[in-house]
Amino acid sequence: MEHPHMTPHLPTPPVIALLTDMGTNDWFVGTMKGVALSICPHVQFVDLCHEITKQSIQEAAFILEISHAYFPEGSIFLCVVDPGVGTERQAIVARNDKYYFVGPDNGAFSFVEMKSKTWEARLIENPDYHFHQHSGTFHGRDLFAPAAAHLAAGAPFEEFGPSINSLLQIPTFEQVMVKGGLLSGRIIYIDSYGNLLTNVTPEHIPPDIDHSHIKLSYHGRFVNGISPHYADVPPNHPLMYWGSSGFLEVAINMGSAQRKWQAQTNDWFEMEW
Amino acid sequence: MEHPHMTPHLPTPPVIALLTDMGTNDWFVGTMKGVALSICPHVQFVDLCHEITKQSIQEAAFILEISHAYFPEGSIFLCVVDPGVGTERQAIVARNDKYYFVGPDNGAFSFVEMKSKTWEARLIENPDYHFHQHSGTFHGRDLFAPAAAHLAAGAPFEEFGPSINSLLQIPTFEQVMVKGGLLSGRIIYIDSYGNLLTNVTPEHIPPDIDHSHIKLSYHGRFVNGISPHYADVPPNHPLMYWGSSGFLEVAINMGSAQRKWQAQTNDWFEMEW
Amino acid sequence: MEHPHMTPHLPTPPVIALLTDMGTNDWFVGTMKGVALSICPHVQFVDLCHEITKQSIQEAAFILEISHAYFPEGSIFLCVVDPGVGTERQAIVARNDKYYFVGPDNGAFSFVEMKSKTWEARLIENPDYHFHQHSGTFHGRDLFAPAAAHLAAGAPFEEFGPSINSLLQIPTFEQVMVKGGLLSGRIIYIDSYGNLLTNVTPEHIPPDIDHSHIKLSYHGRFVNGISPHYADVPPNHPLMYWGSSGFLEVAINMGSAQRKWQAQTNDWFEMEW
Repeated sequence: MEHPHMTPHLPTPPVIALLTDMGTNDWFVGTMKGVALSICPHVQFVDLCHEITKQSIQEAAFILEISHAYFPEGSIFLCVVDPGVGTERQAIVARNDKYYFVGPDNGAFSFVEMKSKTWEARLIENPDYHFHQHSGTFHGRDLFAPAAAHLAAGAPFEEFGPSINSLLQIPTFEQVMVKGGLLSGRIIYIDSYGNLLTNVTPEHIPPDIDHSHIKLSYHGRFVNGISPHYADVPPNHPLMYWGSSGFLEVAINMGSAQRKWQAQTNDWFEMEW
Repeated sequence: MEHPHMTPHLPTPPVIALLTDMGTNDWFVGTMKGVALSICPHVQFVDLCHEITKQSIQEAAFILEISHAYFPEGSIFLCVVDPGVGTERQAIVARNDKYYFVGPDNGAFSFVEMKSKTWEARLIENPDYHFHQHSGTFHGRDLFAPAAAHLAAGAPFEEFGPSINSLLQIPTFEQVMVKGGLLSGRIIYIDSYGNLLTNVTPEHIPPDIDHSHIKLSYHGRFVNGISPHYADVPPNHPLMYWGSSGFLEVAINMGSAQRKWQAQTNDWFEMEW
Repeated sequence: MEHPHMTPHLPTPPVIALLTDMGTNDWFVGTMKGVALSICPHVQFVDLCHEITKQSIQEAAFILEISHAYFPEGSIFLCVVDPGVGTERQAIVARNDKYYFVGPDNGAFSFVEMKSKTWEARLIENPDYHFHQHSGTFHGRDLFAPAAAHLAAGAPFEEFGPSINSLLQIPTFEQVMVKGGLLSGRIIYIDSYGNLLTNVTPEHIPPDIDHSHIKLSYHGRFVNGISPHYADVPPNHPLMYWGSSGFLEVAINMGSAQRKWQAQTNDWFEMEW
């Protein structure tokens, strides 16, 4: 059998990770990629997610924050959730110490910016980095995909346009409230398995508390103890665990907590220890 | 931070853009790509769209027409919406002055052909460019993906088979009717945002008419003036604008015109100026 | 027009084909790819399918079996349907005479193993091939994607961990029953066209039987004769044919047998000759 083995001297292809609310039913993402390939043919695309709730900048900011660190250094995040397309909202490229970000300045980058050691943003004003045609309603294709592709092809960050200091900030998820041995938290995202991501992180639990004794109550349902794995409870039983994105999650083993409990984003729950 | 920068001497990978009605729930698109990679390992795939309404050749023709020009010169469009698979419908490769097209000759290429300066088509008859096995119902995998991959790998266009002069033509969308200051148009596509694409283009409006004074009426709903951007009206208000594909579109800012108005493809509307 | 033509001396990029139940609504598949690209930047990803019914190992095993042979030799199948993540189920790499397989040892590889001439499996124990962080619930990202990427980058199969002899086997689809000129079969999969894949293969039909005279009955519906193509019956009429995966399929030409007949996976039907 042939063994796959790359020669080490090949240059590393640049990565463009796409994060949009465009879905995949239409041709929108495809034409963004077509435009980018005209500028940088060797790019390695990754569809991070195209199913952001339409126009939900907060959801985009959340997904970008929790997923970007899994990509190789130098990756370019092309993040287009753009309800304000054509208004005075700015078009920007940004970078922190490891990654590039391209998209409208509407808050989608604000969660990443908060967690970044360094942060630098520039307006996309240099006409060399725009697409020749320019629609009023699809800057993803006409402005942001070309800018990301020019970055990927090696265009110097400094040449995109003037530096800007303050990007738009959007509020993060509501704070967890902790008082004595009581905590109030919220569901912030429900994934396609029906697992409930919450805004609770390990830092919210006092260090001397045994996680296996914590209780959660939600709409008259109860979960006892934080488990390490789904299979620590029998099938169709609920559990909570520290999820792969760093947040407490609530799930039904082999089932959907969303369906079984009619759970919704923003619902409150309580924890006790 | 590492800066992505491609060495300029690398050969440009060929692009195969896929347009099908196969969806992504099954393994169909994956096996087409697997077969193509066996022939041309360096290909750059772009999923243009796999959610064409099942068996809708007209929708495929429309999407191909409005999106192909955003791809790099030399791109190969593998377009498989193939309800007549196994009948006497022909298997073809075609090219215009910039792109290649591969698929069944069922009309899916007819809108592109109409707009192309040059057009040349050949039957796929050369057995060297077929897959070794051959099912009766999945020529996308067994015939068209291999043909596209052989093109991508450099097989000469002339060697696929004999030239054919006339491809199957399908009717374009119904003509817009304009009489005096009145226009009747139709909804031709509804995108995943619920925006309504119509068959009206700027050429239908007399040059002396101020677009901001045009009125549209549709099922007892009214829109006043063609706006440049979504945000020119308040959230949840309707607007019309020249869309990114060149057609008049009707939308609800931050909402879905499809849902709010129960809009359907082929519905009529009127405009007045 | 530029003609796409690859120089032949470029090394072939390794292929990682992904098969999961993760869907594409979340960031899960994207982060798996990000992690893999950090290890093997030149990989050619193919999304074989991400819409496996949640936690359905049997469906994954079936799709892997019928689709893997369409990929180039040396391809790596990253197959993560992992309801038992974090339990004592093993993490493995395997290979047959042509392909590599990476994922949890839960039966998803058992249909492929049965059909393979050679088969060799190893535990993923070498810590060099794990991701630095390690969640309890997302080994797809933290363990299997890195292992697949290390394989793609040329890591020797033997260095992943100790050899294991027996992988978990899951039952194959229920056997077809044939007695005299009567056959009882089952629907084993329904595709996105609404076509019904069955567990009947040509070997179940005696060699002297004319396929065009075989009758099928299912829930009071009848189909006469096995046809070569959809278009052998008029639109909206039912037909049966040998499908592109080697199984008998039942369909409605230009329609959905699933919708029209309320068909469900596991339903029984009968054939007679």
